[in-house]
Formats: sequence, C-alpha cells, structure tokens
Amino acid sequence: MSKPASLDVTGIGNAIVDIIAKSDDAFLINNAITKGGMTLIDAAAATTLYGAMGPGIETSGGSAANTIAGVAGLGGKAAFIGKVQKDQLGEVFAHDLRALGVQYDTPASTSESPTGRCLVLVTPDAQRSMSTFLGAGQELHPRDVDPATIAAAQITYLEGYLWDPPHAKDAFRKAMDVAHQAGRQVAMSLSDAFCVERYRDEFLHLVAGNIDILFANETEIMSLYQAETFDEALQAVRGKCAVAALTRSEKGCVIVAGDEVHVIEAVKPAQLIDTTGAGDLFAAGFLFGLTHGRNVAASARIGALAASEVIAHLGPRPQSDLKALLKKSGL
Amino acid sequence: MSKPASLDVTGIGNAIVDIIAKSDDAFLINNAITKGGMTLIDAAAATTLYGAMGPGIETSGGSAANTIAGVAGLGGKAAFIGKVQKDQLGEVFAHDLRALGVQYDTPASTSESPTGRCLVLVTPDAQRSMSTFLGAGQELHPRDVDPATIAAAQITYLEGYLWDPPHAKDAFRKAMDVAHQAGRQVAMSLSDAFCVERYRDEFLHLVAGNIDILFANETEIMSLYQAETFDEALQAVRGKCAVAALTRSEKGCVIVAGDEVHVIEAVKPAQLIDTTGAGDLFAAGFLFGLTHGRNVAASARIGALAASEVIAHLGPRPQSDLKALLKKSGL
Repeated sequence: MSKPASLDVTGIGNAIVDIIAKSDDAFLINNAITKGGMTLIDAAAATTLYGAMGPGIETSGGSAANTIAGVAGLGGKAAFIGKVQKDQLGEVFAHDLRALGVQYDTPASTSESPTGRCLVLVTPDAQRSMSTFLGAGQELHPRDVDPATIAAAQITYLEGYLWDPPHAKDAFRKAMDVAHQAGRQVAMSLSDAFCVERYRDEFLHLVAGNIDILFANETEIMSLYQAETFDEALQAVRGKCAVAALTRSEKGCVIVAGDEVHVIEAVKPAQLIDTTGAGDLFAAGFLFGLTHGRNVAASARIGALAASEVIAHLGPRPQSDLKALLKKSGL
Repeated sequence: MSKPASLDVTGIGNAIVDIIAKSDDAFLINNAITKGGMTLIDAAAATTLYGAMGPGIETSGGSAANTIAGVAGLGGKAAFIGKVQKDQLGEVFAHDLRALGVQYDTPASTSESPTGRCLVLVTPDAQRSMSTFLGAGQELHPRDVDPATIAAAQITYLEGYLWDPPHAKDAFRKAMDVAHQAGRQVAMSLSDAFCVERYRDEFLHLVAGNIDILFANETEIMSLYQAETFDEALQAVRGKCAVAALTRSEKGCVIVAGDEVHVIEAVKPAQLIDTTGAGDLFAAGFLFGLTHGRNVAASARIGALAASEVIAHLGPRPQSDLKALLKKSGL
C-alpha cells in the first residue's frame, strides 16, 4: 500500500451488505427476531430467514462503513478497513465505497466464507430489526489494519460490533494504539444495546481509559452503566472520555465535552421511513464537523441533519447530496 | 398578622380566577388572540370577549398561586401573597387556597376593581391562549409583602408577570431583599415569552445577579437571551444563577446547577387535555423537592410528575391527590 494522503476519518467495522425488506410485527415474532436489535445468525439461519422474507432491496451497509460513506458524502476524506469475499456482494460493497472516493484497500478474504450480509426487516413504525451473518467479516485480523491509514487520519472510528468476530477486537486495539501513538483521536460507537450486554466490562474499560469520542444512543449508554434513567447514564459518562455524543432519536442528542453539556434538537425528516443508519449518519456528520473545525454543538447539528436524510428513505446510506443539504441548512 | 410558622415556599403573584372554555383556532384569529401567549386586556375587552366565548368553567388560577397550590397539594407548607377584591371571585380564590392549607392573608383591595380574571381558550391541540384582566391584582403593593411570611420560607417564589402591574415589581424587589437578608433563596419564573419581551433588560439583570432558582420554558429562555436555539440559551444561562430549571413540554427538562447539567424526561400524561398550569405545577414539584431534601434531578422528576397530572384535565390546579401520586411513583 502506498502511503495515504492525509485523511479526516478512517473507519473500521464489519463489511456488510444489507438486504432490506418490509415486514410486520407478526413476522418478527414468528421468526424469533428481537425488534430493534441486531442478532448474529449463522449461514443456515440466514438462508432460512432469507427464504421466508418478502422481496427486498440490496445496499452496501455495515455500521462503520455507513458512517464512512457519510463522511465522504459530506466532502470529507475517508478510508475504510473491513473484510469482504471476492464475490458479487463483496464487489458491490467495494464499488459503493470507492464510488464515493473512500480509500478501501483491505485484502479480500482467502477463505470460503461469502461476504457478510444483514437481513433488515423494517416494520411500519420505521423501526429496523437486524439479523446478521458476518461471513467473511469474521476474518478481520490485526494484519488488515494498515498503520499508515490509521496514522494519516485525524480520527479513527471503530464500531463496538468488532467485539463479535474472533480477531477483530485485536484489530480494534491495534488501530487504537497506532492512532494514539500518532497523536490522533479514537472514536467508538457502542453499536447496539445487546452488543453492550455481551461486552459491558470491556466497553466500560475502553470508555473510561482509551476512547476520546464516544457515540451511543440512549438505550446503549443506559445499558453500559446499567442506569435506570437517561440522566443517570449522562452523569455516569461525564468525565470518562473527552467527548460523548448521546443520541436520542426524535428527542435529539446530548453532547458532553469536558465541562460543556449541549442539548441539540433532532432535525425532523421529510418523512420517517426506515431508521436504519440513523446513528451511523449522525456519527458521520459529527465526525465531519469535528474534522472541519466546527465546535461540538455545530458538529452535532450536522450529525442531526445527516441522520434526518437517511431515515427519510429505505436503506442505511444517504441518497441525497449531503454537501448540498449542508449548504442549504447554513451549517 | 401573627408570625407565621416555618414555611417551605411563599409565592407572590397576580391573584387570578380562570374562566376556561374550549375554542377553535378560528375563534382565536377572529378575536386577535395570540395563540399560546398571555395578553393583558382591560375591563371592557374582558366583557366583550367573555360575551363571545362559549360556556366555561371557573377555577382559581394565577401562575404563582397555582404553584403554591401544588406545593401544598404535595404536602408542603406554603403561603401566598396576591390581591383580590372582596367580591365573589375573590372569595372563591381565597377559599381554594385556604382549603389546601395555604396561608393567605393579603388584605383585599379597597378600590372598585373586581378580582382579576383570565379568559383561557383551550384549542383541540391542548394549547391554551390567555387574555388577562388584572383587576384588583393591579393594586399589589410593597406594603402587602409581610416580611415575616417571606423570612419564614425556605424559598420565595416570584412570577415574572409581577412586572405588569404598577407597584408589584417593587413588591417583588422587597420580597427578594427580605428573603436574601434572612439567608433564604429566591426563585423566579419568567412567566411567558411575551412578558420576557416586555421586560428583557430588567429580567436579564435579575437573573444574572439576584435570582437563585430560575424557571423558564424553552421559548422564554430563548427569548431572554435572544437565542436561535435552545442549546444557545442553555449555554447562556449557565453560571448566571445557582439553579436554572428549563422546561421543554414533552421533551422533558434540563436542569443546570453549577457544574451539573441534568436531562430529565417528561412524564407522559394519562391524556393530554389542557396545558394550562404545566409550568406552574412543574415549579411546584421542583420546589417541593428542593425544600424536602431532594437533589435537583429528583426534584425535577417530581416536577415532571406534577405537570403530567395537571395537563390531563381542564384547569390549572391538580384534581388528584398529589401526595398519593408521589408515593405511587416512588419519588
């Protein structure tokens, strides 16, 4: 790999293609799918569920990859690290990132595992319930983390979901160390309340000592601190990391940055169709803002704007020109 | 006046009886009534509007008086200072406070002015629009402020509306001075965004130097600091007074207390009927909490609970047993 140019954000996450179908609540119940959550499934279960699902649309996904796509869509310089197979879905995944100008050089898998996929069921309330077969994403390894791609980025962004595959958490830790040694910042998303349940002690340790910028939604941060109210979790996270961005859906977000606490409105979407990618795009806008000289409050407003775009249509990646949207909003 | 026993809260405000009727938006437009606001009207306008209104219900009201009724309803020891006439509505007003155990000794008016009334029009969206004829309330004078009733209370609570009558602001200032000289705290409500417009400079001065506990809703605090966003107003009020309780309707409230910032949920009402008194009852719960050893976060939860009771029915005063509600909620 040639030495990369200076980057705003490098993201690391599970490389996933989303298969999105509409569903009713009964289908979720009949198939034992946890509403609003992300459940890991194996290849056989993925095949069975896919067979039972209605017609869908396919789109590149993956939490950190969505964020990186958003950063690039806003005009930022971004890179992604994550593992696909040399198959059709893998080609789609790589194409979609590179078409946005994202640097994506992770060597493809050498195993038999196909590219990972997430079966996303969207209920009429716009809630999404995800069943993920990680596939080749399972094989992400520390050797896939190119130190130059990390050191070149102002912020390295890591998803909590990396705790699921066997070696990915080591890749996470390697990236974190390289970034800090290069004097860069490390951001992390808690990903999902069930993910927090699985790895709470390790996440608590990370948040208290290693992470500079934390992203969490209301249920995730409450799960992390086993808090009964949002405010209890808010008090718990203060002082733990330099910046915590706590998202609350239509209630907006709260940003804690040292002594500062900001309470920022959500941006009402043109229509509410599918909440998939809301948190990912908030993170994109926030990271874009921070890496472009905006303060945390202004960055959060960009995050809210980007999130409002992605929830107004099916799928986890922007479908509008985010740069134009940003300009129009005066942000 | 005999020396009062030790009190939790003494409130001072315009003594008002509310006349509440349902209305549609067209009626507000046809009668040039500012939706959601409080407009001062004279006796003639009150008569005309009352003639045009549909059938109503009468209930004791007045912002600070509602708060004091709430404090008493929660089990607190409270007093009220405000001016009525010796007429039927004045009797109703005094009766309703005393029936709750509130100490109410303000001498009645010696003029011809009848007891003040507020014509409240409630639209189907539960919003209330108020047209107030102050009547005898106009005559509140510093001599009505009994120093012992102020000095005996842990907190003296003053409504911003006191800036409207000619001598009431002097009564406000006298009460503030007596309270502070007695080592007590002074709380103030900004009352209404239009009230803030009328007296912004004086309110800014009060908040920055004289008030210990500030109550404001989102539009009021944004009006005070001429802020474009809630967050801008939030940053502006930090450090200005010991405690600022900023209410945001269904978005809950934000409490700023020195370095602490708390974000507290609203309590969903059984049904949303009439928002009249929501801010007043929030203040009641918050002040009850503070004067009963609760911290600001727990006090805000009591405030949210009391507000949820009053918006579930027509009228600005609780209709349920607030003490029982508090117990049931584990607060």
